[in-house]
Amino acid sequence: MRCEMREDILKKYAALVVRVGINLQPSQPLVIRAPIGCAAFVRALSAEAFAAGAYDVAVHWSDEAFERIRYQNAPMERFEEFPAWRKLFYDDHAGRGAAFISIAASDPDIFSDIAPEKLTAVQLSAGKALADYRNRLMSNRNTWCVVSMPTPAWARKVFPEAAEETAVARLWEEILKAVRITPENDPVAVWKEHIDTLQKRAAFLNQCDFAELHYTNGLGTDLRVELPAGHLWMGGAEHSADGVLFAANMPTEEVYTLPQRGGVNGTVAASKPLHFNGNVIYDIRLTFRDGKVVDHTASRGAEHLKKLIETDEGASFLGEVALVPYDSPISRSNILFYNTLFDENASCHLALGKAYPTCIRGGEDMTEDELRRAGVNDSIVHEDFMIGTEDLSVVGRTRDGRTIRVMEQGNFAF
Amino acid sequence: MRCEMREDILKKYAALVVRVGINLQPSQPLVIRAPIGCAAFVRALSAEAFAAGAYDVAVHWSDEAFERIRYQNAPMERFEEFPAWRKLFYDDHAGRGAAFISIAASDPDIFSDIAPEKLTAVQLSAGKALADYRNRLMSNRNTWCVVSMPTPAWARKVFPEAAEETAVARLWEEILKAVRITPENDPVAVWKEHIDTLQKRAAFLNQCDFAELHYTNGLGTDLRVELPAGHLWMGGAEHSADGVLFAANMPTEEVYTLPQRGGVNGTVAASKPLHFNGNVIYDIRLTFRDGKVVDHTASRGAEHLKKLIETDEGASFLGEVALVPYDSPISRSNILFYNTLFDENASCHLALGKAYPTCIRGGEDMTEDELRRAGVNDSIVHEDFMIGTEDLSVVGRTRDGRTIRVMEQGNFAF
Repeated sequence: MRCEMREDILKKYAALVVRVGINLQPSQPLVIRAPIGCAAFVRALSAEAFAAGAYDVAVHWSDEAFERIRYQNAPMERFEEFPAWRKLFYDDHAGRGAAFISIAASDPDIFSDIAPEKLTAVQLSAGKALADYRNRLMSNRNTWCVVSMPTPAWARKVFPEAAEETAVARLWEEILKAVRITPENDPVAVWKEHIDTLQKRAAFLNQCDFAELHYTNGLGTDLRVELPAGHLWMGGAEHSADGVLFAANMPTEEVYTLPQRGGVNGTVAASKPLHFNGNVIYDIRLTFRDGKVVDHTASRGAEHLKKLIETDEGASFLGEVALVPYDSPISRSNILFYNTLFDENASCHLALGKAYPTCIRGGEDMTEDELRRAGVNDSIVHEDFMIGTEDLSVVGRTRDGRTIRVMEQGNFAF
Repeated sequence: MRCEMREDILKKYAALVVRVGINLQPSQPLVIRAPIGCAAFVRALSAEAFAAGAYDVAVHWSDEAFERIRYQNAPMERFEEFPAWRKLFYDDHAGRGAAFISIAASDPDIFSDIAPEKLTAVQLSAGKALADYRNRLMSNRNTWCVVSMPTPAWARKVFPEAAEETAVARLWEEILKAVRITPENDPVAVWKEHIDTLQKRAAFLNQCDFAELHYTNGLGTDLRVELPAGHLWMGGAEHSADGVLFAANMPTEEVYTLPQRGGVNGTVAASKPLHFNGNVIYDIRLTFRDGKVVDHTASRGAEHLKKLIETDEGASFLGEVALVPYDSPISRSNILFYNTLFDENASCHLALGKAYPTCIRGGEDMTEDELRRAGVNDSIVHEDFMIGTEDLSVVGRTRDGRTIRVMEQGNFAF
């Protein structure tokens, strides 16, 4: 048994990702980034993409077990040099207007015995080499979608008490629930409605025009986050530069915007462990002053948290503020996925690092300088971490001085 | 069950390939080309390579089932353009002195319903784009080795009556036998002896200094092949430009040299089907005049044979002459592998297309023009086909006029 799934369900899932996730257009190229263990899904996605009129499909295969051998053995300098051919792969496809699907399915602990310096070196060299490609995606100039499927190592971590086969089957069940697929339903129609709900939520928050959000809960969170003038709440789906509506995450339960770069003060406690770079970081606590992290602790994986925050200057500032109700479906499953795609959609979260330029009015067309002046943070990283709890309170102060309760007891108050 | 093999045997096999196959040198980079189903072997090879001092390992993963979807759907023009990033991958690694391991494990029939034009277009575009890289390997400027392991689709074709799991286990058994690995032996020592035997055979043939070989058998073969002045028989292992002894094929049972480009006359009948480009060609018959194929037939797959011969001008001339005794171990197994790496080492064979410049004295340092004048064929293809039978006779005529029986009843006569 190797992550096998009924063919009709896999086809339904693939069709949803191609039609709603990236909303592939006729003659558009597609790039899929996938672990080799997800080949069945890659093939299903490719067949659906061609059925939707794809020009061609290219795959960037990866194998963490092989990468682990490299990290253990290859010299440090090797990780400081990003392969020119791989940069060309991404730049060339992005330049041709490709859509990008990424299958997120990692063994959460696979790199736990690897020197953090090597992992950071890869993040830095990849971040620099792929800056153009990443900027294109984060400004929606190319459509993209992050999705998932179980792999045995990941499933065993999520369901440690179960046999491998059972763990994989259970994880499939949870993933299909999270992406709203049942054997009987029409997931495309279900997603249209779901996207509509999230977009209405975002529209309400935009109407409020908040100047600040104040987070508090029993974990010790007491954080004030200023939002810049012209910030935009988004959710469910977004329009690409060419006007194509696409859903960049499947599942997605969040509405999100960006904070004012220098306007974050106070302390926040993470409510879930964070899977980062093949390692898990537990009990993160961050203290901010004028936007910047001035203190950080973790009960395990603290060295990885430190590396993350020190990646570059922008990595110590926030780049995203996202609201997810505590009673959202993924949250109610009460499963810790050790996979940010799921855990962030079970919980209010923040992100360290780069902000989405699309979250500020006119941001897609601003220069780097203009974005910075508008309060939009930049970094080669963008790392979400979860802060939602069942007692979380978020109180908003609007630009015209009103106070509005945004979240109470972890759920939306409006 | 997915091609699993006892870990100690896989490690032994990997060590043999790394130490004897490519004979990896300290600080040398390694490239592995592999189907995704061979990941366990890729990991074992990588671990052994690092143990031998590799600088780094890069993998070019492939998935035929995915490629089949592309061939079925992507437009013709897509196959006429070879990806620039993939060319850079090979040129960059070759330029850095990398060794190259290729794992040959194909489903022999996978592309049987694909338009031959698309398969040929890929061969042409890849041949042109990767000409530098291929020239480097065929002149031994980089060390390389072709090896194999079972995949389920391939094993089912070789053992059609067996259940998948049994077929894979049987194919493993045959492959390990062919590469001379047993649980108890020291395959590196065994291979040293085996290489020595093949090199002695080559030395004898070199001493003869043949001007012509005359092939005849009951299948209708009656072929005269002139050998150019200065031709060299090789076998078992070769020296790279840097003086590293390496074995480019595992298994290998052949001694081989190159024919005089314009000096092949008569008819030859293939004795085994040929796996070529995801298709199988049966009962090949070729007639040559002054080196060139002037007539060709096949009972099945004739359109693929035609495409092969018409790839470019050199594809209709011979580029290799190889002798394998009919009672060699792989031949005695009496198994049709549908995989040239094994079938060619069970049988005397010829190749259409490019000749190895190393098979003529000083060839590594000759220009293209000089090689052509010396009678060395050039092409973007090099395709072996099997002609050995149990009644094959090969009679040699030496440059000084003597007649020497080279093979009788399929085996060496000396």
